[in-house]
Amino acid sequence: MVATTSGRNTRASDHVREDRLWQRHMEMAKLGATAKGGVNRQALSAEDAAARKLLGGWAAARGYEMFTDPIGNLFVKRPGTDPDAKPVLSGSHLDSQPTGGKFDGTYGVLAAFEVLEALDDAGIATKRPVMAVAWTNEEGNRFQPGCMGSGAFVGEYQLDKLLEGKDPTGATVREAFASVLAAAPVPVIPQLGFPVDSYVEAHIEQGPILENTGNEIGVVTLIQGMRRFYVDVLGDEAHSGTTPLRMRKDALKAAASMVLALETWMADPTDTVRYTVGRFEIYPGSPSTVPGKVHFLIDLRHPEQETLRRLGDGIAPICAAEAEKRGCRVEVREYTTVAPVPLGDEAIGRVRAATQALGYRHIDMISGAGHDAMHIAKVAPAGMVFVPCWKGISHNETEAANAGDLANGARVLADTLAALANR
Amino acid sequence: MVATTSGRNTRASDHVREDRLWQRHMEMAKLGATAKGGVNRQALSAEDAAARKLLGGWAAARGYEMFTDPIGNLFVKRPGTDPDAKPVLSGSHLDSQPTGGKFDGTYGVLAAFEVLEALDDAGIATKRPVMAVAWTNEEGNRFQPGCMGSGAFVGEYQLDKLLEGKDPTGATVREAFASVLAAAPVPVIPQLGFPVDSYVEAHIEQGPILENTGNEIGVVTLIQGMRRFYVDVLGDEAHSGTTPLRMRKDALKAAASMVLALETWMADPTDTVRYTVGRFEIYPGSPSTVPGKVHFLIDLRHPEQETLRRLGDGIAPICAAEAEKRGCRVEVREYTTVAPVPLGDEAIGRVRAATQALGYRHIDMISGAGHDAMHIAKVAPAGMVFVPCWKGISHNETEAANAGDLANGARVLADTLAALANR
Repeated sequence: MVATTSGRNTRASDHVREDRLWQRHMEMAKLGATAKGGVNRQALSAEDAAARKLLGGWAAARGYEMFTDPIGNLFVKRPGTDPDAKPVLSGSHLDSQPTGGKFDGTYGVLAAFEVLEALDDAGIATKRPVMAVAWTNEEGNRFQPGCMGSGAFVGEYQLDKLLEGKDPTGATVREAFASVLAAAPVPVIPQLGFPVDSYVEAHIEQGPILENTGNEIGVVTLIQGMRRFYVDVLGDEAHSGTTPLRMRKDALKAAASMVLALETWMADPTDTVRYTVGRFEIYPGSPSTVPGKVHFLIDLRHPEQETLRRLGDGIAPICAAEAEKRGCRVEVREYTTVAPVPLGDEAIGRVRAATQALGYRHIDMISGAGHDAMHIAKVAPAGMVFVPCWKGISHNETEAANAGDLANGARVLADTLAALANR
Repeated sequence: MVATTSGRNTRASDHVREDRLWQRHMEMAKLGATAKGGVNRQALSAEDAAARKLLGGWAAARGYEMFTDPIGNLFVKRPGTDPDAKPVLSGSHLDSQPTGGKFDGTYGVLAAFEVLEALDDAGIATKRPVMAVAWTNEEGNRFQPGCMGSGAFVGEYQLDKLLEGKDPTGATVREAFASVLAAAPVPVIPQLGFPVDSYVEAHIEQGPILENTGNEIGVVTLIQGMRRFYVDVLGDEAHSGTTPLRMRKDALKAAASMVLALETWMADPTDTVRYTVGRFEIYPGSPSTVPGKVHFLIDLRHPEQETLRRLGDGIAPICAAEAEKRGCRVEVREYTTVAPVPLGDEAIGRVRAATQALGYRHIDMISGAGHDAMHIAKVAPAGMVFVPCWKGISHNETEAANAGDLANGARVLADTLAALANR
């Protein structure tokens, strides 16, 4: 490829515009903006609908076709020259954590859309269509499971069951999706899932490695595995003032013991194991009543299947031992199991080649977070492009990234998608 | 005193009716009834209003005057013969824990009302008025602080501040009280607090001592002291999948360490210390996010002031040490301090004498729970009558008591109040 100034025969990456990409992040960040500078744009909420509408306006201005599927995955299509060719997909998600940041997910959608425009501005026709996608409910906070839209797209989940899922207020996915469609109308295609040529997702790293090593691009080769568990600790409610401690079955103290006993069990000198208790609810929650029940969630991640198996299988017996010491009962149930996902060699190679051609400092790396790419990798070659974020902080309202770093990632994505769509 | 069948010159206790008293408990228990057989009748709720209305109907049927004061304490008055005499008060509370039982508080109100009727049925005129009272918000769950009504009655709290207090949904005490008055209209007297001759409160023990020792009546001599603390643990939100554990400031793990370190600190071979963490909230509560904040409440009780001082003063430094190990910050604030309250010798003596005259097996005992009596004891001789409850269980939907035990307590209360009102 030869770079020119005519707009013809240039690289797609030459037409990525850092200012436009940054500005769009700032506009998206207004939707669900929090007082602390973050974003609360939970899946299929009014804020999510507003974000879809904003993207739809940009797509309409370019004349791109936009449609959604039965689980709410939103597609923006730039046609290819071969009517029979499967599309090259790129995207991520527009939903956020309740106290999330401006870039997690949103970057991948906006970078993909930037590539569509860059291809147009470069005058590059592609054999295959290139499509930007915003997958529904990647975060898995309001509704379970996370990566719902991409998982449904590849047939991992049953649509009817997903639509009946409820948020903590009792609203179903079906109702929430209907509200989103009412607020941000878009054609709905009847089928869930269609053939895909290949998939590349751009994302902020959400960890500190690129920043600490001074690299600009991470070429992701593997997404680490995850196991998630519900733990229900059952004790007995009793009066705080009268009940002798030896007679109590205190679910809170039992649960605290479990959290710390599991911390010892998970201890890892290499600091590779990720063990988190991110939800922890006690009942009835009165200062005068010994808690009779605690419900908490364990999130365990590791790049190696064998370690995941060993550590995760230890959770139930350890919780049972702690419960027994306190006269409580415990129920442990695994509700999400994701094996480590190696990404596709062809997609990885194309990302690495585009990065090298652009001259960015880069490393191969593992993704600590789960991403929609791990589902799509089951049906097509999938790759990921990581860019640095400030101090590696994410799932936090202070999440930050540089406009220049974001544009670098979009340039890698542009040349990667162009290559895939024309190979 | 000589018992006769004429209804004249009998003891008031002879006219306590076990069946009537039990039936009224069952009727009250319908208001806020839970599926598990308990009661959820939180302070100044619609259910509380319904309970006040039910009591009002019974009072009207007997022709008793009923009125409320500016914090919602509800009084039912049986007049005395001396127009200048201060009243003898007896009662407890109608509000419950969110998963409370049928007897906690309600028993003291219904037993006092039973005494008013027994005095009538016995044809006993008293020099002093005898008044049944339902104090507002004893439980301190929906609104803080507990024992709100009795504390306000004796001038412990400022009325205006109390009325601005909010429940977790943002509703104020003022608004909730207005709703109660609209649903259960009753005259409101302008003054808060009036002179009281003496006070006796009947209550289920809420602990296992009477049952374990085979006694029918507990003569309460002291209410143990209490210190309550807010603890705010502040860490940093981070991504569960990517953030190495050594870089985390995990507020949940820090709080769990505090709960267990405090358990060690509070360890007591005599099992007299009561250490409870009954509320524990984590933020943002997403499985994918390391918790950045935990808010929990500590309830510490003991009969001896010096032990309360020593143990309570250790809480802040212990929490600080655990926070430091985890890179977190912690703020500890004491929000309720109640010294142990010795009850009034005269009231204790009258309760013990009435119990002995009735021939019940009894012991002197300490109250493990706080009660409205601890506030009233500041302005008048105050006593308490305890009756057994099943396995000592309270603040629990399975809370239970025998009709016979409840009637025994009401008989002790009847003769005690008659003696106080005519001495």
